[in-house]
Amino acid sequence: MGMLNHPLDPGPTSAIERGPWHYGADYITVYFRGEQKSLKALVPRPFEVGDGLCMAYVCEIVSVSGSDPELVVSRPDRTLYFEAAVGVKCGFRGRQGVFFPVMWVTTEWSLLRGLLNGYQKRLADRISMTKLHPLNPGLKEVARGSRYGGFCVKGPGETLSLEVTVERQGVPSDLPSFGATFGMRRFPRTDDSQGSVGEPVEMVKSNSRVTDVWLGSGSLRTELDVGRIEPLSGAIYRSGFTISGSKALK
Amino acid sequence: MGMLNHPLDPGPTSAIERGPWHYGADYITVYFRGEQKSLKALVPRPFEVGDGLCMAYVCEIVSVSGSDPELVVSRPDRTLYFEAAVGVKCGFRGRQGVFFPVMWVTTEWSLLRGLLNGYQKRLADRISMTKLHPLNPGLKEVARGSRYGGFCVKGPGETLSLEVTVERQGVPSDLPSFGATFGMRRFPRTDDSQGSVGEPVEMVKSNSRVTDVWLGSGSLRTELDVGRIEPLSGAIYRSGFTISGSKALK
Amino acid sequence: MGMLNHPLDPGPTSAIERGPWHYGADYITVYFRGEQKSLKALVPRPFEVGDGLCMAYVCEIVSVSGSDPELVVSRPDRTLYFEAAVGVKCGFRGRQGVFFPVMWVTTEWSLLRGLLNGYQKRLADRISMTKLHPLNPGLKEVARGSRYGGFCVKGPGETLSLEVTVERQGVPSDLPSFGATFGMRRFPRTDDSQGSVGEPVEMVKSNSRVTDVWLGSGSLRTELDVGRIEPLSGAIYRSGFTISGSKALK
Amino acid sequence: MGMLNHPLDPGPTSAIERGPWHYGADYITVYFRGEQKSLKALVPRPFEVGDGLCMAYVCEIVSVSGSDPELVVSRPDRTLYFEAAVGVKCGFRGRQGVFFPVMWVTTEWSLLRGLLNGYQKRLADRISMTKLHPLNPGLKEVARGSRYGGFCVKGPGETLSLEVTVERQGVPSDLPSFGATFGMRRFPRTDDSQGSVGEPVEMVKSNSRVTDVWLGSGSLRTELDVGRIEPLSGAIYRSGFTISGSKALK
Repeated sequence: MGMLNHPLDPGPTSAIERGPWHYGADYITVYFRGEQKSLKALVPRPFEVGDGLCMAYVCEIVSVSGSDPELVVSRPDRTLYFEAAVGVKCGFRGRQGVFFPVMWVTTEWSLLRGLLNGYQKRLADRISMTKLHPLNPGLKEVARGSRYGGFCVKGPGETLSLEVTVERQGVPSDLPSFGATFGMRRFPRTDDSQGSVGEPVEMVKSNSRVTDVWLGSGSLRTELDVGRIEPLSGAIYRSGFTISGSKALK
Repeated sequence: MGMLNHPLDPGPTSAIERGPWHYGADYITVYFRGEQKSLKALVPRPFEVGDGLCMAYVCEIVSVSGSDPELVVSRPDRTLYFEAAVGVKCGFRGRQGVFFPVMWVTTEWSLLRGLLNGYQKRLADRISMTKLHPLNPGLKEVARGSRYGGFCVKGPGETLSLEVTVERQGVPSDLPSFGATFGMRRFPRTDDSQGSVGEPVEMVKSNSRVTDVWLGSGSLRTELDVGRIEPLSGAIYRSGFTISGSKALK
Repeated sequence: MGMLNHPLDPGPTSAIERGPWHYGADYITVYFRGEQKSLKALVPRPFEVGDGLCMAYVCEIVSVSGSDPELVVSRPDRTLYFEAAVGVKCGFRGRQGVFFPVMWVTTEWSLLRGLLNGYQKRLADRISMTKLHPLNPGLKEVARGSRYGGFCVKGPGETLSLEVTVERQGVPSDLPSFGATFGMRRFPRTDDSQGSVGEPVEMVKSNSRVTDVWLGSGSLRTELDVGRIEPLSGAIYRSGFTISGSKALK
Repeated sequence: MGMLNHPLDPGPTSAIERGPWHYGADYITVYFRGEQKSLKALVPRPFEVGDGLCMAYVCEIVSVSGSDPELVVSRPDRTLYFEAAVGVKCGFRGRQGVFFPVMWVTTEWSLLRGLLNGYQKRLADRISMTKLHPLNPGLKEVARGSRYGGFCVKGPGETLSLEVTVERQGVPSDLPSFGATFGMRRFPRTDDSQGSVGEPVEMVKSNSRVTDVWLGSGSLRTELDVGRIEPLSGAIYRSGFTISGSKALK
């Protein structure tokens, strides 16, 4: 390394590359209803919890920066991670969206990049999820009845585990819509002399595409207190998108 | 756990499930020529090193036991691993095959299952390899000029790293053929009073299929002393097969 | 690497160095009584479960081979590991000892070395345990009331967790005595043509020393089915010993 | 979790506990001289590189928050980590100190706590270092000639490795003095609408104690470009201190 970037200052020697950041992900998702009282303790102001609709997922992500997509070759460890998250439908001044109280990820760079953009990311010890392979003689292709599972471990136990049973093929519009993706950028003081940041944000997302949708039922467990869980449905799908940063919500 | 299997005694509470074991894998492979003198120090008798042809690969594997394929759902961590290996073409009584002096893997169960069948497996700290995603807006599909890379780390450094540049689509028969897969089952004594095993074997493999072949050039580095490396070609492909055990070669 | 050892064939390029193997370990141990019916399913013949006395511990181990103790400098990762285990008091032809149905360890080499000697080892994803530091301004030295805890995680959850509260300083003879250390060497067939090993053993242990004993109460949880757990006592201590191999019990 | 803290907002459900934070650490340190031109690219303004004196270390740390020291029992994984770092002597308005261009650590919480205070921390994949054990029959106590080593791995290779050979026992004042500990708090924008932080800081450190000092010679390798390395001396020692936050330097 020559001139050294601060770990949070996007650049070639930072933990975070310069945006925009491109994503391709395979999801196992469960939609559920939580309890408003519990959800309110998970979602900071100014976001307002909606009708209790939530989502939980585990996914595997291939992510590259527009500034250096060749890392998929030279440093594949900087382009692959797993993520597990719980999202709560909420609103901000009449605008609908989803706020993720926690997103667990498996790499440093996705952790820090997420925090810089306003995702409340934490580092997982392990995330594992069902992967099928078309040439494995002991496995079948996805079909009615196929099951998918995943879990996230941090410290002594699971933070999230979920399972989806596929019932039928679907289209992207079959998936519940949450609207915008909200977040919270925070960098608090550890001394009165310091500066700080604390601002609600909305992610600046583009290029969204969803394919390979399969729908069914789902179930989940999580250490996050979302109140009593009423599972609504489950889905698996692939998704791609670009994030260029996040916009402060005044 | 109720009745407890010994970790090496295949069964539901063992590190190893009962066979047959089914595999589906995505490979990045480099074919090369090593030096006979060096290769001879890597291949035990009764196997005889051939003309110096070798292969090195990194791959991601989805593996299930015929006795419990549902682990892909309930324990995906017991069905997914990465493998990096170096193989040397050799012969046994006129029969051609490949012997792998080392195979690094990322999970306990693939390590122990492999040792039981006669693969000289070691545990990697990390294996990472190029993965593309069709929906990632910053990545292109495989095509002429696409590059793939991978590396394996154990302890303080890399044990193997390789890179392949794709030149054209191919068919399975374009890949160099090595013949049988040889191995060495060993369980030595730590005291004269003990029993031991030491026998050359051939893997009992079936259901082999290969798809998605792309051919090109390749390069590699490895801590394994194979002599001077003359890269011959590179390839990416997917493969599926079943291993039911290994047969002792008398 | 030049001439390559098989991973299980002790030597400089193997996963296992040549014995004898020396150990220095810091233990957090809980003594408890389990239920005979459950314990019998965990202990293979010819060992006979005793009165239900068991032990569970987590420990950090510094281990070197007599053939290359300098690895503590050049490869410290090959000399340090954590271990968590459950041991059951049992007898063999009137000789008292302890059999460990499971020992979880954090490194490849302790896993394979243990299996070769006859310990039923498994790989842990993580073992963590209380460590105090005399210069940490926020911690106190061990004293009456000090508490110690530890846990072992494998896959989605804890396999073992325990806690000890110290009541008084003790001496080595205050610790319950279990006698010999028994084990089971197994290397089963995956095909009828193969050789196999299956023999009960006793570890050949010497140079045993115990210091820094503190005694008190303890509690534990484990996924291993030992029946209802009746905690008897807890202890922390340091121990050193040498293992040169294991002797087959005919 | 009930009311949820943002990962960077110190509190019981955050990645960071409330300060002050207490540390007890065992160090292997090499003092060396680097080249000014290289060092200047590693140290941001307003800090001014001194005469080229630098330090590099690996250490194991027991760290607790004043708000919940009992985590050493219930969550030991939240109180233990390894750290590897390179520090450069520099000045700020006539005040002497050390700035660490990079500190690699092995846990999320030490990573994020450090970033919040102004340390340029990165996550290591592995840090390993010599540890002796007084009861290990194959090891000797520290003495003239004892050697200690350590390394840090991130991605495909070592970021730092070092070795110290002990020549004599010393006292804390034998260790080169660097003065204050400087840092840089940064939380940049990913969009013009956002707030940001960028300020040089000095750590607020107290309760410093050093014991068990042994002095000798040392050597190191690092991926960090510090220019040609001229090793000056090596040391091992234990240290304890408290950090309550960091003070912005105006």
